[in-house]
Amino acid sequence: MSIDPARHSAELLNLVREATPLVQCITNKVVTNVTANTLLALGAAPAMVDIRGEAGVFAGIASGLLVNLGTPTEEQRDAAREAVPSANAAGTPWVLDPVAVGVLPVRTALAHELLAGRPTVIRGNASEIMALAGAGAGGRGVDASDATDSAADAAAHLAATHGSVVAVSGPVDLITDGRRIARVANGDPLLTLVTGGGCALGAVTAAFLAASDDPFAGAVAATLVYTVAAEIAAADPGGVGTVGPGTFAPRFLDALAQLTAEQVVERARVRVTTVDASGVAGEVTGIDAADAAAALVRS
Amino acid sequence: MSIDPARHSAELLNLVREATPLVQCITNKVVTNVTANTLLALGAAPAMVDIRGEAGVFAGIASGLLVNLGTPTEEQRDAAREAVPSANAAGTPWVLDPVAVGVLPVRTALAHELLAGRPTVIRGNASEIMALAGAGAGGRGVDASDATDSAADAAAHLAATHGSVVAVSGPVDLITDGRRIARVANGDPLLTLVTGGGCALGAVTAAFLAASDDPFAGAVAATLVYTVAAEIAAADPGGVGTVGPGTFAPRFLDALAQLTAEQVVERARVRVTTVDASGVAGEVTGIDAADAAAALVRS
Amino acid sequence: MSIDPARHSAELLNLVREATPLVQCITNKVVTNVTANTLLALGAAPAMVDIRGEAGVFAGIASGLLVNLGTPTEEQRDAAREAVPSANAAGTPWVLDPVAVGVLPVRTALAHELLAGRPTVIRGNASEIMALAGAGAGGRGVDASDATDSAADAAAHLAATHGSVVAVSGPVDLITDGRRIARVANGDPLLTLVTGGGCALGAVTAAFLAASDDPFAGAVAATLVYTVAAEIAAADPGGVGTVGPGTFAPRFLDALAQLTAEQVVERARVRVTTVDASGVAGEVTGIDAADAAAALVRS
Repeated sequence: MSIDPARHSAELLNLVREATPLVQCITNKVVTNVTANTLLALGAAPAMVDIRGEAGVFAGIASGLLVNLGTPTEEQRDAAREAVPSANAAGTPWVLDPVAVGVLPVRTALAHELLAGRPTVIRGNASEIMALAGAGAGGRGVDASDATDSAADAAAHLAATHGSVVAVSGPVDLITDGRRIARVANGDPLLTLVTGGGCALGAVTAAFLAASDDPFAGAVAATLVYTVAAEIAAADPGGVGTVGPGTFAPRFLDALAQLTAEQVVERARVRVTTVDASGVAGEVTGIDAADAAAALVRS
Repeated sequence: MSIDPARHSAELLNLVREATPLVQCITNKVVTNVTANTLLALGAAPAMVDIRGEAGVFAGIASGLLVNLGTPTEEQRDAAREAVPSANAAGTPWVLDPVAVGVLPVRTALAHELLAGRPTVIRGNASEIMALAGAGAGGRGVDASDATDSAADAAAHLAATHGSVVAVSGPVDLITDGRRIARVANGDPLLTLVTGGGCALGAVTAAFLAASDDPFAGAVAATLVYTVAAEIAAADPGGVGTVGPGTFAPRFLDALAQLTAEQVVERARVRVTTVDASGVAGEVTGIDAADAAAALVRS
Repeated sequence: MSIDPARHSAELLNLVREATPLVQCITNKVVTNVTANTLLALGAAPAMVDIRGEAGVFAGIASGLLVNLGTPTEEQRDAAREAVPSANAAGTPWVLDPVAVGVLPVRTALAHELLAGRPTVIRGNASEIMALAGAGAGGRGVDASDATDSAADAAAHLAATHGSVVAVSGPVDLITDGRRIARVANGDPLLTLVTGGGCALGAVTAAFLAASDDPFAGAVAATLVYTVAAEIAAADPGGVGTVGPGTFAPRFLDALAQLTAEQVVERARVRVTTVDASGVAGEVTGIDAADAAAALVRS
């Protein structure tokens, strides 16, 4: 059976809101507040438990975990080292966001260490995904200087070697588990002009993983819901003037809080393709239509 | 003499604005910014002095102190241990906000340690107050899973054993010093959809303690002023569209900055009752009408 | 040749936007988010790299560096000690913002230690600049209790002894390199009612230093651009209601993002004077017209 990815994402949004997943965030100091507010607007419950002696305990009871390496203090690094094995032991899905990896030594070493814990999802911009996969120079740290598609090979490689879903942010977002590739064309450039545009998506992804047995479908839904809300926020529905980055941020939270399943379906610009054993992409219409092709890839 | 709690709160608001109390905050990383902005909007002066070697010095000159355990890094824990005895030695009133106590081990141990310093006010949601008093399981950490009134006994117990005023956030806020109970019915559900909805109230309470000889009256005024501002912010006075959590946050700061004493009196939904020696509540009309009853309780 | 300071500032704004300078911020936890968003709105790229083992590496590749002492954790203090020599070795301009110096011991010691690294610009309020120069009592830490002009002597002294440009925030901002004094009368009182009003200006200054060979001109341009944007934000262009501190903050980011060079020139209220060897000020019209006078001062 083939499931339409837009409809499936809308259903997952409803599931997230019903379940109010508890999302533990070990994240950077720039986006802590906006990440928590984004989770609240989505309908999830944020918990920024990132100290030694608590991070591991909490990862065992959380619904999902985000480890974002944006400003990894010594205490946060130890917290991440506690949380990841605890999450894995408890079956808590977790997201690794390797901010500025490749450019800076401490986080790069930590990212590779945490990769061994096989993240459920790895989320980053093209530079970061390429750096993590060992390709490219890593950019200037925080901005995406590579096109998303140039990171597709790196994403596929990471997915294959770590069993992770890999999500690459860009003008078109790309999500892959190695056998399926989703491209989400929703979003707005204003997302790149506010802090947390990418980082908060990592937390939203962790929330959707708690609601989906299929991490690929969860990551696609998170990206779609997030970028559709951004489009609505940028569209200036109240007509009170030009939307700049300052007023966009609160509008985005409003749009996310008020987003309906119908809006997700109507606005979705998502396409899922499969990769066959020869690496040739073939278009499909459903988010799980790749099962047959997958058999080829995995065998 | 009986003082109307709404009018008294309005007067304390004016006193806070005249005095610009310097409020030291050792608080969590999620709400640091919104807490500082809330204090500024109120007319107080925020000072987030939370490092070793400075927290104790500053607590001796601050007008009020907040210790919030939301994300207690090792350095903040030491800062709290410096600040509390210094505040007590200098007569600086202080507020303990035991975020997620009972759920997580490090903060739970610290909360009990700090309790020995006899906080002027203890502020939390029902789960936290019950956990701190040794009742209930402590909820999931950050959301209020118990009704406020179910925490009334726990609040009374904490008040009696530590000489503190205890303030419990919820749909109806409850404040007690063991002999008086105030219930504040103002507020808006949007306060629970933005970070800092509860945490920033702790800082506002510290500001009002600096302006009131009676910590109970100070805590009531803080809660009333804060929740009335929230109501106004949620009411969409400009009529520019539906208020969601994103646009509510800046509107709340505007409403707090522009709040008049008259608005506090007009909108107040506050009721103060006393508890007699047998534990039976008797309604009173004034915030200090409990003096006679208090003699019974304390004897 | 004399250059009009308003026109020159407008040109530097265009240069900043073309170059997208990478601004490393070691800054306080209250303003981390608003500082990053302010840099993004300006057209610069923020990078909050403030941990041991990375701060020094990054200062060597950043376009500019801010060291703000608002909440200097132990890890941040070490990061600053790494970053400053690295910035100096690489020729990266850097800004020191000595928040609350003079009041609190840890940051005061660190500020004097960092001063030896000869900041390109020192930015603070009057109390802080006077405390750093050894004059005045240092105020209450975070608010400006001295008039800007009373800090003019202290600013001149700091400029002379450390070879730094000194920028003093206040109702009228004062910027001096010891031979030139600029006074910028733009701005709005709402800047003092939101966190980051001063701190984010330090980061903006670092961005302009990356675009200007003359640190004095860079600091003047940063102050002018920043305070003109604040005026526009406070002016309620959309006419949707009274602007309070909450709605001012996002409007300010919008105004900064949409600010044109023409608006800077039209609204600028900036005056540059020189100081002759006898300490007597003489008015000039251009930002570099002081060259002749400077010869007197420096000889």
